[in-house]
Amino acid sequence: MTLAHVGVGKNTRNVVGGRKLGPIGFQAAGIACGIKAVEGAKDLALIYSEVPAKVAGLFTRNRVKAAPVLYTRRSVRRGICRAIIINSGNANACTGRKGLMDAEDMARLTASVLHISHQQVLVSSTGVIGHPLPMKEIKKGIPSLAAELSPYGFGDAAEAIMTTDTYPKVAVKRLNIGGQEITIFGMTKGAGMINPRLGTMLAFILTDAEVDSGVLSNLLREGVQSTFHRITVDGDTSTNDMILLVANGAGGNSSLHHGDVRVRIFQEALFGVMDQLARAIVRDGEGRTKVVEIVVQGARSNREAEKLAFRVARSPLVKAAFFGQDPNWGRIMAAMGDAGVPFDPHKVAISFNDVLVVEGGVQAKGTGQESVRNVLRKEEFTVLIDLRRGTSQASVLTTDLSYDYVKINASDRT
Amino acid sequence: MTLAHVGVGKNTRNVVGGRKLGPIGFQAAGIACGIKAVEGAKDLALIYSEVPAKVAGLFTRNRVKAAPVLYTRRSVRRGICRAIIINSGNANACTGRKGLMDAEDMARLTASVLHISHQQVLVSSTGVIGHPLPMKEIKKGIPSLAAELSPYGFGDAAEAIMTTDTYPKVAVKRLNIGGQEITIFGMTKGAGMINPRLGTMLAFILTDAEVDSGVLSNLLREGVQSTFHRITVDGDTSTNDMILLVANGAGGNSSLHHGDVRVRIFQEALFGVMDQLARAIVRDGEGRTKVVEIVVQGARSNREAEKLAFRVARSPLVKAAFFGQDPNWGRIMAAMGDAGVPFDPHKVAISFNDVLVVEGGVQAKGTGQESVRNVLRKEEFTVLIDLRRGTSQASVLTTDLSYDYVKINASDRT
Repeated sequence: MTLAHVGVGKNTRNVVGGRKLGPIGFQAAGIACGIKAVEGAKDLALIYSEVPAKVAGLFTRNRVKAAPVLYTRRSVRRGICRAIIINSGNANACTGRKGLMDAEDMARLTASVLHISHQQVLVSSTGVIGHPLPMKEIKKGIPSLAAELSPYGFGDAAEAIMTTDTYPKVAVKRLNIGGQEITIFGMTKGAGMINPRLGTMLAFILTDAEVDSGVLSNLLREGVQSTFHRITVDGDTSTNDMILLVANGAGGNSSLHHGDVRVRIFQEALFGVMDQLARAIVRDGEGRTKVVEIVVQGARSNREAEKLAFRVARSPLVKAAFFGQDPNWGRIMAAMGDAGVPFDPHKVAISFNDVLVVEGGVQAKGTGQESVRNVLRKEEFTVLIDLRRGTSQASVLTTDLSYDYVKINASDRT
Repeated sequence: MTLAHVGVGKNTRNVVGGRKLGPIGFQAAGIACGIKAVEGAKDLALIYSEVPAKVAGLFTRNRVKAAPVLYTRRSVRRGICRAIIINSGNANACTGRKGLMDAEDMARLTASVLHISHQQVLVSSTGVIGHPLPMKEIKKGIPSLAAELSPYGFGDAAEAIMTTDTYPKVAVKRLNIGGQEITIFGMTKGAGMINPRLGTMLAFILTDAEVDSGVLSNLLREGVQSTFHRITVDGDTSTNDMILLVANGAGGNSSLHHGDVRVRIFQEALFGVMDQLARAIVRDGEGRTKVVEIVVQGARSNREAEKLAFRVARSPLVKAAFFGQDPNWGRIMAAMGDAGVPFDPHKVAISFNDVLVVEGGVQAKGTGQESVRNVLRKEEFTVLIDLRRGTSQASVLTTDLSYDYVKINASDRT
């Protein structure tokens, strides 16, 4: 597994370890077309498959859905994708009928430039809500963008979908299926409005494997449960989120069907890519100085463990204490008690990494404050909560709540 | 209605407009006994009724309940109260069996000094979780505290229950019931961990009215629904919250029973005091620069309106935008869409005070950005959300999310 942090700006590197990032038969590009106010900031990305590819998608469950979500959800049902056109800097959300027409226009113009059917062009947007898309800039940008398409363009594309992200996020995994080398490539953006049920998050995962459509949908749905649905930055869920999984079969393996033993190999690699992307989103969470994994074990059910972990992971008081490196475990207990999950406070044990802090619901005896503080000074650590009620567990990755989170969201139209 | 912000520190004034704050037959005191690290910071309060009083109480629904909550909940069931002993600076929560014994010891020592039954002494604590109470200081403090009891001691008591509050919060209402002047006095503390289902919030409401026990309980339960349960600062709910309503009958009215027309007069005044106290908590919310009322109307049910209002009121992104005075209504729409309440985004109208910002789910036409910004510059304003689905409504009072909220909670053990 290579988690590549492709450089930004002039140093953009589209090649990792001397190899192109993308799978066989895919090309990409990213340019600045003038949607973002900052001169030269990339804001338009294109992903292209040289052959028709199978596609599966998951979309935000927010009741307020952006126009590209409504448009692309419909197109994905047809199951075939040739291209994805993505803009950042404007969400095309809460934009009414004009927004829907703009999304369709983006697809049609991309299709005409690429000489493909507009029904096979998917559309995605991210950025500020409630402003009409600057279609003049986008229409001028699409032909230039298409002219830039290349197997080496994935770094530019990953950069062009960023909003408050501080770096592009990609992950690549190469695996061998029946003697064929297969690539799974993913790119994502996140930073704020991150929450399960898809925060402001776009993710595009491409593979040159040949995969049966039903398998593709199932793997995507199953994979997000343990990856993208297990991260939180601020508990806010956006209007624009989508994850697309595209398989063009250019790798040459025989198709992966239900029950095929090779599906497990592919699944493991795919979930690995999704996990890396999800973690990259949290690592680049708005203003974060910490990445904390909240693990709840000893629960009666996974659902119970998950509810508790999320309640702790979202508590502003707990997150502010992480920022302050304050071993204030009382806030963790208070958040747990408010999760609507039954447990016996007198059985709870809490550790920060391997340092036991709470035992039997009270301060653990003999634990030095200094050893606790040493853990809290780390950039990444784990809070392990043991309920001692059962055998189920769940984990959630979260950030701290910092001055910079407030600053970013108070002063920027993102 | 007099909302009295009693002065702090050396300027503590226990008299408002030349009159004592408390109702007839009540005395109070507040002293520094050494629980708080800051020299001279008041941390021990006592409320005393010269005659046995009826009492009703509501307690945190957090599953992790502090020792004084467990102790006092049991005592309140007996229905009679002579005194309330309260400490700040230490929550006596997650302190195991010792915590329960300490709470009982506080009641017993107070009772013995006042020569009353310990079963009629209620105990309340607020502060940091997980540390044993410094009983040496408290035991030394209680006799001195009792010696300070006076009808003029309510300002000191209100000061002694503060944690991160920046000023004591009291409210007084005088009313006439059948020719008798009756006083309803309330004091509260809040600041952080504020949320419905009782945040870190203590409230003590005293009246010299004679009120039937059943009426007292019903009024308390009903009153919190529209007051203390309709405020949020950070969505965190504490282990220690309690509201006690104490009626000693010293005012001399004949008892208020169910069906008595005078109950409505008393109720109105009581709810007024509770509303003032609840608003005072939000106004003193940790680090807040804004107080914003989120009103959802045109809903199919009150429950639906309430869920939506709370989802918006708790969104960190919405709250950060309030702090930044940013008219980012898209974040309000996004939060609404995530509330789990059905509505048609294309029917939504949103106003900031009387300035229409969203109409039909999109930016309202003809609204000047400057008039919107003028509202957002105010310290207090209303966000009115109309769903146009029905006739029900709900409102929630919230704060913004500021640097100082993070600072207070990252750097203080509160």
